[in-house]
Amino acid sequence: MSEKKILLTEKEIPEKWYNIMADMPNKPLPPLSPATNEPIGPEALAPLFPMGLIQQEVSAEKWIEIPDQVRDIYKIWRPSPLIRAYEFEKALDTPAKIYYKYEGVSPAGSHKPNTAIAQAYYNKQEGVKKIITETGAGQWGSALSLACNMFDMECEVFMVKLSYNHKPYRKTMMNTWGATVHPSPSELTQAGRTILAKDPDSPGSLGIAISEAIERAVQDETTKYSLGSVLNHVLLHQTVIGQEALLQMEKAGDMPDIIIAPFGGGSNFAGLAFPFLRLNFEEGKKIRAIASEPSSCPKLTRGVFRYDFGDTIGMTPLLPMYTLGHNFVPAPIHAGGLRYHGAGVIVSQLLKDQLIEASSHHQLECFEAGVLFAKTEGIIPAPEANNGLATVVQEANKCKEEGISKTILFNLSGHGHFDMSAYEEYFSGNLEEHELTTAEIESSLAELNTPTI
Amino acid sequence: MSEKKILLTEKEIPEKWYNIMADMPNKPLPPLSPATNEPIGPEALAPLFPMGLIQQEVSAEKWIEIPDQVRDIYKIWRPSPLIRAYEFEKALDTPAKIYYKYEGVSPAGSHKPNTAIAQAYYNKQEGVKKIITETGAGQWGSALSLACNMFDMECEVFMVKLSYNHKPYRKTMMNTWGATVHPSPSELTQAGRTILAKDPDSPGSLGIAISEAIERAVQDETTKYSLGSVLNHVLLHQTVIGQEALLQMEKAGDMPDIIIAPFGGGSNFAGLAFPFLRLNFEEGKKIRAIASEPSSCPKLTRGVFRYDFGDTIGMTPLLPMYTLGHNFVPAPIHAGGLRYHGAGVIVSQLLKDQLIEASSHHQLECFEAGVLFAKTEGIIPAPEANNGLATVVQEANKCKEEGISKTILFNLSGHGHFDMSAYEEYFSGNLEEHELTTAEIESSLAELNTPTI
Repeated sequence: MSEKKILLTEKEIPEKWYNIMADMPNKPLPPLSPATNEPIGPEALAPLFPMGLIQQEVSAEKWIEIPDQVRDIYKIWRPSPLIRAYEFEKALDTPAKIYYKYEGVSPAGSHKPNTAIAQAYYNKQEGVKKIITETGAGQWGSALSLACNMFDMECEVFMVKLSYNHKPYRKTMMNTWGATVHPSPSELTQAGRTILAKDPDSPGSLGIAISEAIERAVQDETTKYSLGSVLNHVLLHQTVIGQEALLQMEKAGDMPDIIIAPFGGGSNFAGLAFPFLRLNFEEGKKIRAIASEPSSCPKLTRGVFRYDFGDTIGMTPLLPMYTLGHNFVPAPIHAGGLRYHGAGVIVSQLLKDQLIEASSHHQLECFEAGVLFAKTEGIIPAPEANNGLATVVQEANKCKEEGISKTILFNLSGHGHFDMSAYEEYFSGNLEEHELTTAEIESSLAELNTPTI
Repeated sequence: MSEKKILLTEKEIPEKWYNIMADMPNKPLPPLSPATNEPIGPEALAPLFPMGLIQQEVSAEKWIEIPDQVRDIYKIWRPSPLIRAYEFEKALDTPAKIYYKYEGVSPAGSHKPNTAIAQAYYNKQEGVKKIITETGAGQWGSALSLACNMFDMECEVFMVKLSYNHKPYRKTMMNTWGATVHPSPSELTQAGRTILAKDPDSPGSLGIAISEAIERAVQDETTKYSLGSVLNHVLLHQTVIGQEALLQMEKAGDMPDIIIAPFGGGSNFAGLAFPFLRLNFEEGKKIRAIASEPSSCPKLTRGVFRYDFGDTIGMTPLLPMYTLGHNFVPAPIHAGGLRYHGAGVIVSQLLKDQLIEASSHHQLECFEAGVLFAKTEGIIPAPEANNGLATVVQEANKCKEEGISKTILFNLSGHGHFDMSAYEEYFSGNLEEHELTTAEIESSLAELNTPTI
């Protein structure tokens, strides 16, 4: 019997995060003030984030030490297993070797706690009593609830009302870890009240929830805001995934030719890919990294590279990113974590410089890949992870056509236990695919009056 | 930083199951034919189970080899981690050391696949094409669906209609692994039709679902039936849990004084406890093993030891067991897996001989312990596991009162991802506790006309 899982000991949890900024040939352009269109410094972020995180956001240091207390909490589920997908390979009849890093072993069921724990730690260090955030599908809200609970801080989550009503289990999970969850829009903020005055039955949106969370966070000095993806420090924290995977691939006596991860704002893609891209920078390796996005929200494959807001309302600084426009409303696909209009600035710059690739898929293709995975490997993936699996199938099929064995490494970023209604819809044949037209994208981009690059 | 998780390699997955029958000072009494009240032999089980499993059911061999193919599939999630509950200990302010074996890492989310995989294997060996079973809360149905899928066999699950309607996610999970799920009672069987004729709106019960599954399984030679607990071969398969835990405790340089596990039919309790009881038999150790049951279904602490049917309808052989009577209907507590009227014969004999202990708890006390565990250790336990946690808290508090440090080992048999509605009810203050009166138990037992012991 050959080994299926490659495990590490707790001593092998990385001691430093890898900051890819240090190795990028072209650094990202600076954020701009929406008022002046002039570059802004890190101090502009101080009302929202603690200095520990702001320093990481702008750091040029290649390695940033992980505090012992963070590593201690990581031990609840880290190191996560690297698993060889022997049965999935067999079912695909491919000469490719497929490995997956499984981040669903965290108590919140996804990779999100890697950064939530770190963010809670730095907030705690600076005396913050409460962290406020927003959540769509609930993965990020769950992760931050867990993290705040571990550091004995309050946590308040604005959950998009549609999800709040459709995913009550996610809400209860957050409650279990002691968080307060509000359906958004709410009467608690001016932003929420304004929306409700116009439309008392508003189902909410991530954009509205962000506005509510930010508005409430800045009212109190001991309260801060937190974001679960996109920003540099969030991507940084996720690099524990790829660093572990690199060590595990070495133990397996193998090395990936292709790295694949689902792409929402960039954090789970960056987490797995960046520590391998380091080898491209340092040793001239040619490891391909493919970000897998839904064809209904294709900022990387069909968006433009320009300055845009991080949120829908336009409260954040302007960021240089691949975007579909901050007013773009993607179809209500089940991979809720991938329904973001833009991409993190680091990932955007890497794509611009052709140092990474992107691929897009219809959700039907994604669920087909996900069900094949569940039937062969056992684990039922989150809809977001299914998107990445569609790219894995595509690359494995290419290997088959070309008769070449490549090694593929995939980020199985979470399990689907809270998303079974999506599978039910797939099995019942009701899963729809909206064909996004060029006119729709152009119309969303035409509304932008932000600086071009 | 001290180590939190004790992990094993795949090579350390046990190679044999431990059969406690070989070491028991008093062997269990034989099963009886309900028609004659005379002992029956293993051949009576042939219409339901393959010979490979029947041989294990009656085996006196101390060690039974685990087939390589079963061990290969175990590798998807085994060995499971043994984890030191440092934070839970701290919150309890106890001198006790608390370890837990976490079986929620299986794709189905509980310990059930340990036997489901083995049962599917032996059925496959004998040319069985389809396995039929029943499920209440859905844990067992999920596990067998996964197992049949891995061996390319059909799986049909009769799911208690109340659960079918209330837990649609469990149903979809089974569908994802290719199983067909029927709400029970159904029109597919005589048993189902009879019930529906009397009560078209019947919510079903585990007893009815068993009857439907058995009736349908015996109609076809290539179709067999399967049970997820109670029987000797099921308990046998679960001993991989305790064997791994023993090795892990040795690696931690520790040894449990007390072993605690939730108790439904006996399989997860046996799985953890039996390999440690072996040390009591062989080396004269005095490790205590406590079975934790709900006070609303207290067969071990308030039932009688006598012959009774394994099912509600009275289709099975008569088994010597602790029972509340096969017509006993427990309150609808959330720990659905613990709502069984009887106890497996091996566990019953051990309790009779005072070689194990039992403890019972109200579900409010169980959820309180479960939420404290989730808030300290991160993992949200299944309601069944919360029952065991209530006993852990009890024993840890005793250590505190007595100022003695004991080592407690607990079986965290599954996660609560599919049971969040139970937590919601707990948080909303609507979780009720039915005080079971002695008169109610006596009334159920008075109906029994089965042989006494």
